[in-house]
Amino acid sequence: MITITDPRIESYILGLAPEENPILDAMEERARETGVPIIDRQVGRLLHLLTRMKKPDLVVELGSGFGYSSYWFARALGNQGRVVLTDFSERHINYARKTFNEAGLSERAEFRVGDALRIGAEYDNVDVLFIDVDKYMYPEAISVMLPKLADNALVIADNALWHGTVVEEDPQYENSGAIRQFNEFMFSRRDFFTTIVPLRDGVLLAYKLS
Amino acid sequence: MITITDPRIESYILGLAPEENPILDAMEERARETGVPIIDRQVGRLLHLLTRMKKPDLVVELGSGFGYSSYWFARALGNQGRVVLTDFSERHINYARKTFNEAGLSERAEFRVGDALRIGAEYDNVDVLFIDVDKYMYPEAISVMLPKLADNALVIADNALWHGTVVEEDPQYENSGAIRQFNEFMFSRRDFFTTIVPLRDGVLLAYKLS
Repeated sequence: MITITDPRIESYILGLAPEENPILDAMEERARETGVPIIDRQVGRLLHLLTRMKKPDLVVELGSGFGYSSYWFARALGNQGRVVLTDFSERHINYARKTFNEAGLSERAEFRVGDALRIGAEYDNVDVLFIDVDKYMYPEAISVMLPKLADNALVIADNALWHGTVVEEDPQYENSGAIRQFNEFMFSRRDFFTTIVPLRDGVLLAYKLS
Repeated sequence: MITITDPRIESYILGLAPEENPILDAMEERARETGVPIIDRQVGRLLHLLTRMKKPDLVVELGSGFGYSSYWFARALGNQGRVVLTDFSERHINYARKTFNEAGLSERAEFRVGDALRIGAEYDNVDVLFIDVDKYMYPEAISVMLPKLADNALVIADNALWHGTVVEEDPQYENSGAIRQFNEFMFSRRDFFTTIVPLRDGVLLAYKLS
């Protein structure tokens, strides 16, 4: 495992935007208690900014957990936009639904329990695709969703550096091969412009050129 | 000075996009020879992706050096867009002009020699503002340019982490106070959504909310 970004830098950036928000606090507390992985506020802010810029009608998340990233997307959407949450766990999705109700964001969301890839494939003209399923599924996830993307879609994948194991194997983290394969696939596509931002655990951004 | 991102991670990301491009090579060689600071390819790719997403009509650069960042912007612009280059050095701007001619991008650029802030203030409806002047000038630069920004403008500032001196002073790098002041100003504005990406020396992104 590699420390991707110096922790003092991470603290500095987080300290610049000290948002007091009981909903974020509660979800972060739940993540600590349950061990369910979430993106952090830094990544959340990047998703938020990109969503504001992109003004998508349809965001599809593959692997929403209990809705932390979904909340960052939903807050950034205009009234025309919606985010589709997917997770295997009914408990996670129920928690997300409750949270979105409290936040007054339910009308911007669809809550779906089941196989993320199968559900994702039901949608067309996806403007923003967020990939955060189990890491071994990344190559299959993009392959299923490629035909479902709108023109100029933005693909965002969390954990694109997978704790640094893309450059140095660590028995604690499996599936670095799948992540490497996914990254290489995205960078090799001439119909996408792709980059990775070393924020937290790495965020891959791929913009569809037509 | 703090190593912001692990160098193995930086190499991995750069290695995923091995663009063979004699123009970039020549500019990077010139940067090494002359010691003129440039953004690197990682930051270049982020600027490129954001510009593709934003589709700006007008990009204004405060502090273009010999045009490395300008080249990344210009390639990402559509036919309707242009980038204004500013630098004190006539030699830098002449080199940029020559490079843009070779690249067939001259029609997307304006080449201006002189005081970046004074020149920048001549423009209105700036869609993307790129700040890369001397670091002590950052607070003044944004204050001069705020009224010149278009709705939903994107402000991008390089060196927002200033070699880590925003968290740990280093006598080798002056002006960490000015950078901190600039960052705090941008994050405090309610009319912008701001974040910092720890890419290379830190890239501040601020999206104007109206």
